[in-house]
Amino acid sequence: MDTKNYSRHIELNNAVILDGFWSDVQKTVNSKVIPYQYEALNDRIENAEKSYCVENFKKASEIVRRLRNGEKPPVYPVDKWCYDENNSDENAFHGWVFQDSDAYKWLEAAAYSLQREFDSQLYDRCTELIDIICSAQMENGYLDTLYIINDRDMAFSNLRDFHELYCFGHLAEAGVAFYYATGNKRLIWAAVRFADLICEVFGENGKAGYGGHEIAELGMIKLYEATGKEEYLKAARLFVDRRGTRPFYFDIERGITTDGLGYKYNQAHLPVREQNEAVGHAVRGVYLYSAMADLSRLTNDDSMYEACMRIWENITQKKMYITGGIGATVDGEAFSFDYDLPNDLAYCETCASIGLIFFARRMLEIKANAQIADTVERALYNTVLSGMNIDGDRFFYVNPLEVLPKASREDSRKHHIKTTRQKWFGCACCPPNLARLIGSLGEYCYTENDDTVFVHQYIGSSVQTKFGRLDVKSHYTENGHIEITADCQRPFTLALRIPSWCDEYKISANAEIKDGYAYVGITEKCELLIDFELKPRLVKCSNLVRENTDKLALCYGPSVYCLEAVDNGDNLQLLKLDLSTDFECGYTWCTQSNMPIPTVVANGFREKPDERLYSDFASSKQIPCKLTFIPYRFWSNRGETEMSVYFRYTE
Amino acid sequence: MDTKNYSRHIELNNAVILDGFWSDVQKTVNSKVIPYQYEALNDRIENAEKSYCVENFKKASEIVRRLRNGEKPPVYPVDKWCYDENNSDENAFHGWVFQDSDAYKWLEAAAYSLQREFDSQLYDRCTELIDIICSAQMENGYLDTLYIINDRDMAFSNLRDFHELYCFGHLAEAGVAFYYATGNKRLIWAAVRFADLICEVFGENGKAGYGGHEIAELGMIKLYEATGKEEYLKAARLFVDRRGTRPFYFDIERGITTDGLGYKYNQAHLPVREQNEAVGHAVRGVYLYSAMADLSRLTNDDSMYEACMRIWENITQKKMYITGGIGATVDGEAFSFDYDLPNDLAYCETCASIGLIFFARRMLEIKANAQIADTVERALYNTVLSGMNIDGDRFFYVNPLEVLPKASREDSRKHHIKTTRQKWFGCACCPPNLARLIGSLGEYCYTENDDTVFVHQYIGSSVQTKFGRLDVKSHYTENGHIEITADCQRPFTLALRIPSWCDEYKISANAEIKDGYAYVGITEKCELLIDFELKPRLVKCSNLVRENTDKLALCYGPSVYCLEAVDNGDNLQLLKLDLSTDFECGYTWCTQSNMPIPTVVANGFREKPDERLYSDFASSKQIPCKLTFIPYRFWSNRGETEMSVYFRYTE
Repeated sequence: MDTKNYSRHIELNNAVILDGFWSDVQKTVNSKVIPYQYEALNDRIENAEKSYCVENFKKASEIVRRLRNGEKPPVYPVDKWCYDENNSDENAFHGWVFQDSDAYKWLEAAAYSLQREFDSQLYDRCTELIDIICSAQMENGYLDTLYIINDRDMAFSNLRDFHELYCFGHLAEAGVAFYYATGNKRLIWAAVRFADLICEVFGENGKAGYGGHEIAELGMIKLYEATGKEEYLKAARLFVDRRGTRPFYFDIERGITTDGLGYKYNQAHLPVREQNEAVGHAVRGVYLYSAMADLSRLTNDDSMYEACMRIWENITQKKMYITGGIGATVDGEAFSFDYDLPNDLAYCETCASIGLIFFARRMLEIKANAQIADTVERALYNTVLSGMNIDGDRFFYVNPLEVLPKASREDSRKHHIKTTRQKWFGCACCPPNLARLIGSLGEYCYTENDDTVFVHQYIGSSVQTKFGRLDVKSHYTENGHIEITADCQRPFTLALRIPSWCDEYKISANAEIKDGYAYVGITEKCELLIDFELKPRLVKCSNLVRENTDKLALCYGPSVYCLEAVDNGDNLQLLKLDLSTDFECGYTWCTQSNMPIPTVVANGFREKPDERLYSDFASSKQIPCKLTFIPYRFWSNRGETEMSVYFRYTE
Repeated sequence: MDTKNYSRHIELNNAVILDGFWSDVQKTVNSKVIPYQYEALNDRIENAEKSYCVENFKKASEIVRRLRNGEKPPVYPVDKWCYDENNSDENAFHGWVFQDSDAYKWLEAAAYSLQREFDSQLYDRCTELIDIICSAQMENGYLDTLYIINDRDMAFSNLRDFHELYCFGHLAEAGVAFYYATGNKRLIWAAVRFADLICEVFGENGKAGYGGHEIAELGMIKLYEATGKEEYLKAARLFVDRRGTRPFYFDIERGITTDGLGYKYNQAHLPVREQNEAVGHAVRGVYLYSAMADLSRLTNDDSMYEACMRIWENITQKKMYITGGIGATVDGEAFSFDYDLPNDLAYCETCASIGLIFFARRMLEIKANAQIADTVERALYNTVLSGMNIDGDRFFYVNPLEVLPKASREDSRKHHIKTTRQKWFGCACCPPNLARLIGSLGEYCYTENDDTVFVHQYIGSSVQTKFGRLDVKSHYTENGHIEITADCQRPFTLALRIPSWCDEYKISANAEIKDGYAYVGITEKCELLIDFELKPRLVKCSNLVRENTDKLALCYGPSVYCLEAVDNGDNLQLLKLDLSTDFECGYTWCTQSNMPIPTVVANGFREKPDERLYSDFASSKQIPCKLTFIPYRFWSNRGETEMSVYFRYTE
């Protein structure tokens, strides 16, 4: 068993991001994404798929009013995952069954924004939305608009498919965030009322259920940490411990007996401590694993931690793309089998990489390990940021590593691979999830315990630790130079992650290296200079991944790079990097967003297209050319174009 | 415009196969496949999907009897493509809507078998089945059990989806074949009666319809050639000429107006002369193109021939696998876009390659061109033969070029990729189609015109030409040696195809080379010796196919070879051929079928699996090893195992 060195993330009001790169992203989220998403929740974006989110809360509020008046509102079927004008009554619930959660995620993102910089207009919008939400809560605390609008009596009757426990989890997270950010208790109070009902229904002597889509576990844990009420921690543990035990609750709900393999999708096929492999819907998976890690930390549960480690290693050693994307298959938005990581069919949902970061932070809080923090970095700088365009008003749900626009149009197997970011999605989990992660980025950079502050991510920031203030100036992505000023109130150890991509680094102090961290003793106010040598690196993927043999990827610091046809011409498979090349780093101007995009230019060759479909082997003719790479996160900001992360090479 | 040199195939009773390799295959078809399929049509194969084929004819026969008695049989819905005990009344039609065609294809195959070698037991089975079929024909000549059983009044009301014109086409082909083989006119008479009804309904002054699944065109042409009745040729031309013209008949059937793009699936989106690309369902496509080629020949129609050539070139230069497989995508069992030829997702239906051979033979009859005959060879020796196991009792519908059994089990995108041949399919078009092609192989080897006999395929045989007998002894696949004895009754030219894979050959006579054929003047009885140098060849696929860059395939004569894990260990992607290797040809014993399977053994390397999923570029460790290749057609005869046609290489 590993030696643990528990630490806790630093609360958001103590970790303010002040970073050339990330402050811009946060500003985009504040100024563009949050207002834009508010319009989307209210169905005011032209030509975008409708959300119905706020509309549902208003309908539910009306139902609750009528119930209070002793009326009997009509009943509509709850029999689908998605409802619209064509398949349901106009007075019934509309949108996806988990639509409430978009409002909660938006409120959580807005809370982080308010915490960073109070904005009375945004605060008013939030409280107005919270009013609508609270008015939709039933007297017993129940709060899920699908069942409130369509069929009150059927609440909690199909936990496998319908997302009321999921919506509760997001309500709890939003409630806690909004309370911490503003002191306003209205939303957390709604969450507490709903949590109390859930504890009553699913407590130790209640139904042995758990949600088909995990996150109630994380919500309960956050409520426990905010309120101190043990009941909520217990509920989280019950949800996790019951999962996948026999008889399967999802069988009981249906009055059938199965072998449970169908519940792999929900990670409910085996008790969690017996799970060795990440399976099923990827977002659900990482939300469960995050809760398992939290429970392991909170209750010092070794067997739970071991399960977390096995799953963590399975994901990061066998099921994760170089971009930090997870969930290789569109079928069930799921993890595929080991080493099945097709580039052009990838799913890599933005939310799944966000969830992977949630899981990673919690694992780091149990034991600092640079491989885990590296994975946060990998997901953050690549798949997560790829989820949003530079302007902050278009989003990717799916983040492939190779795109041929023609294939996305003509090949039904690739219809999930969008070639340009979308305005909004009917199933819009990703954009608000992205907003809440970016908004709470401060929580992912540092953890601290009784003697150590861990720096996991080098993002410029000002941090209030137990030992005094840390001021971090970071040029991490530009040149690898970081300056940390430690205003030492009492001696402590500063543990600095050494990125796995860095072979050469300098730290202006004596350091002891352990588990990928440089441990530096700080006894007085001081300034540390850190230099990570940044250079383009050629990275290979294991030859157990069939797709990438005889190919390479280019990485530069934390960023994975890619080729786009807009820079390199069509048929990217004709390009070959010359291994003896030098690399030239520069910029190309993105006229669409009026911003420079970093480039790495290398020497290579472009094969001439072979004229005959089949011919006796002979090397194809090739001519020297330049290969221009851009960071993967910026792909598809300059129109629809072929893209590939992996490329061929020649000695 | 090409100069044409029309020729006609030699009729089956004049072209008897006597070939070490192919006679064995024909024997397997006669002794195993035909009896086995008869059992299948009668639902007597244990644990195989039910056919319902004969059962439907019996049900229809009973309906016809009741109609004759003035009764009103019940009506059942015709609203699906497949019916079984669970979704339809037990007295209604069962199976796929085109199930009748299986009986016809079986009868056609049986006819070829009887033509080769009369077998009274088989003949009795045939006439018994023909009796059942004929008793199901309605008084007006209509003969399709789906509508006869379920809803007489709705006949011909949905040509797009329901296959009565398709079933008619197969009935006509079977009727003609059975008549030629046995002189028995009962089945062709049924076909003629149905054809007359169709001509009445869809003639010049009738409905402007055509079948959603082409083959009525070919059936009409065969009936025309057998009976001399111009009406049938006209009907074929109407079906072809109307196709894809506006207003779209499939729109008219539904009372809607569309842009017709949805009818790409049926090749009915554009008039056929405006089609430049093979699109839609691959089998339907090649059946249509075959009829277009026939019509071009029969009516000397240049614009039709030009369309055929454009489509031919599109298929063979941009949409055909090295194995002669066509139809790259499971979605619609269809042609994909140019150069989209994924190995592991391939569809490559056995029937589609059979249809490609139909198309090719007809193109050769317009103009002899070795590239076309090469394609027949490519499809025949590879995808077509891969469709059946050595023992003749298991079949592939789908013929991929790369198989990972785990992926077929766990990845829904690959569920169509079976790893072992199946006993029978509910949708069992391929096994009887294969039987009828193998049975009529003689038709595909030779064509003749007024001065020339063309040898397109070197298959041992005894052929009665206009100019006297040809006796061909062939060791084509073993050592490339062929002996032709020409019993010259009058002078003629013998045109010998030079296979495209052959760089060195000897012909024991003066020859003029044109369009890939060696033209030899024959003035007296003589013996020609031909030697095509046979050696393993490394073949590359155009770099416009993204999947195969930096990979090669191994071919040996007409056969494409592949690697199987049973010989080479798992993880075939770790293997690399050493380009400096010698090749050693030999055999490996297949204990399952008690037969030797040819092998080619080469030197190469096996990479050690990379331990880390992502790492700085360095060549993987490798150890020398032998690579054992077997002919693609024999893959999966030795149990479930990983397979790949393409492999990596190293200088």
